[in-house]
Amino acid sequence: MAEFRHDPVHRRWVLVTVDRSLAPRDFVIPPRGHDEGICPFCEGQESKTPPEIYALRTGAPDRPGWKIRVFPNKYPVLDSSSNDLQRKALGQYDWVSGFGSHEIVVDHPRHLMPLHEMGRDHLASLIETYRQRMASLTEEPRYRYFMLFKNHRAQAGASVNHSHTQIISMPVIPRIAAMALSTAREHFHHKERCLFCDLVNLERSDGRRVVAENEHFVCFVPYASRFAFEMAIFPKVHHHDFATMHDDLLGPCAAILEEAVKRLAELFGDPPFNIIFHTAPNPNQASRRANYWGTLKFDWHWHIEIVPRLEKTAGFEWGTGLFINHTPPEDAAAYLRRDPPKNG
Amino acid sequence: MAEFRHDPVHRRWVLVTVDRSLAPRDFVIPPRGHDEGICPFCEGQESKTPPEIYALRTGAPDRPGWKIRVFPNKYPVLDSSSNDLQRKALGQYDWVSGFGSHEIVVDHPRHLMPLHEMGRDHLASLIETYRQRMASLTEEPRYRYFMLFKNHRAQAGASVNHSHTQIISMPVIPRIAAMALSTAREHFHHKERCLFCDLVNLERSDGRRVVAENEHFVCFVPYASRFAFEMAIFPKVHHHDFATMHDDLLGPCAAILEEAVKRLAELFGDPPFNIIFHTAPNPNQASRRANYWGTLKFDWHWHIEIVPRLEKTAGFEWGTGLFINHTPPEDAAAYLRRDPPKNG
Repeated sequence: MAEFRHDPVHRRWVLVTVDRSLAPRDFVIPPRGHDEGICPFCEGQESKTPPEIYALRTGAPDRPGWKIRVFPNKYPVLDSSSNDLQRKALGQYDWVSGFGSHEIVVDHPRHLMPLHEMGRDHLASLIETYRQRMASLTEEPRYRYFMLFKNHRAQAGASVNHSHTQIISMPVIPRIAAMALSTAREHFHHKERCLFCDLVNLERSDGRRVVAENEHFVCFVPYASRFAFEMAIFPKVHHHDFATMHDDLLGPCAAILEEAVKRLAELFGDPPFNIIFHTAPNPNQASRRANYWGTLKFDWHWHIEIVPRLEKTAGFEWGTGLFINHTPPEDAAAYLRRDPPKNG
Repeated sequence: MAEFRHDPVHRRWVLVTVDRSLAPRDFVIPPRGHDEGICPFCEGQESKTPPEIYALRTGAPDRPGWKIRVFPNKYPVLDSSSNDLQRKALGQYDWVSGFGSHEIVVDHPRHLMPLHEMGRDHLASLIETYRQRMASLTEEPRYRYFMLFKNHRAQAGASVNHSHTQIISMPVIPRIAAMALSTAREHFHHKERCLFCDLVNLERSDGRRVVAENEHFVCFVPYASRFAFEMAIFPKVHHHDFATMHDDLLGPCAAILEEAVKRLAELFGDPPFNIIFHTAPNPNQASRRANYWGTLKFDWHWHIEIVPRLEKTAGFEWGTGLFINHTPPEDAAAYLRRDPPKNG
């Protein structure tokens, strides 16, 4: 028995297998390979990276003595030094130059230090660093959208094993954000309520998919999760923009993130995963569509997505965009709450 | 230097790196592992699968003597025997039962026979089998959409190495098809021209992205391909529905498909890939939205997508839906035409 569930934000169906619910033990995580060579992200190897933009540190820049360190990616996907922002039509096709930025945040000086062992204070500093960089990037009016994300382990796309985060600024709104934004905007237009606030309230009152909660944040497994054991973290009070998150939320944000990654580690050891921050498009962007951006603060609600990469994606998912999730979200949440489902 | 290209069908941006174009030699394909145990898809192992639905064969069903064999998947993603079709609202959420079908087409009796070595006549029989099965499935009015696809090698999601194809029937239109259909429908509504016909004409007159062509079909690398060396095959004359393709097109369809997979094999040896058939939603579906389906034959244009799986997908792609393609489509087409780009 399987069922289709509709994601009300992205307007997509997800197929959830209900009768053959996969438990954590059913997913095989390959062991981590030996880590050879010298890591350019380790403390003491600062000369191997571009000069730092920002760091939490004692002592001079680009030397040891840091807790967290940020520098431009040596191999940027987008960059604004050699590229102008241009938009043009090529006959029937549309084209925009690869204008943007690509930064690396090294999360911790020690090699192979997992996120769930860094400690809550360090995580709060890390989130503060993210906020600082995102706030700084919003000052460039030609950046329209920012993606802050983390690939943990090669199966999740990491090319360097040392724990790090990437921030990419871009001059276009990518599809997933565009779709979610348009749905949320329409919801607000009709109801004068935030779509995400509605979902947060629904999940909190239902409770079956909630993993953890504190004063300011809630973590739950979305109703129509594409991936098994996927989690979403939302601030409980409506706020659109991660870059302007209040100081009071830094500690609780670190606490809920630590809780989420600890639960994953308890169930899977050291699973590959992605963490993705979904924040509003740049509120300072220069755009002729000024009115379009004016209601962002009502439409959007920033949140964090944690996606374990436990299964392969195949032709069916690529061809349809319809994902198959083998662990019903209610079961996944029960395991993550340390309260395994009865049939598990 | 990179550039954003907009996909006019799916309305999504794709990021193409132009200055560091990856050539075929830059992609490392891991060797195929030893294939252990007895394959249930091999000739002589018919008792290990559910009874066949259809076969091109001599002799009695479920015995050796076949060229191509079709049976229900032993572990179906969707099925109509134990599931009724139900649609309901669960509070704010939407739910549909996992009603549908899931068939396996074994492409050839011999284990590890690659598609590009089966021969053109065998491929024509295979395409005829696909057409027969798809036509048969359209008779169930509760099936709304069909996905015919192929996963080649484990990295592309195959769990059985023996060359096979899957056909899944479902009661919902998945996101990618829904988006493309809505764009194509709008295009036709405004212009009374098929969006795909426009693209086929544009690509044929431009020529830079064309890989191969015959009397009835053209194969090209799409302008905003998400994946390096991705190819699309379109019939040149407008037709929406693969299940009603004219007999005259079977040979040319086999010829262009063989050409495409041969070119991939020449460049990459035995790369993992997915093949996906994009056909119109079921024209016979029972739906209260009757008018909505009435113009399908104008809106849609069936086609085949061939997606080599040469690179990993990471947090950035999952978070944004924005793909990074490291081989510009013009370069990829040149390699596939056996005419490498000058800077290659």
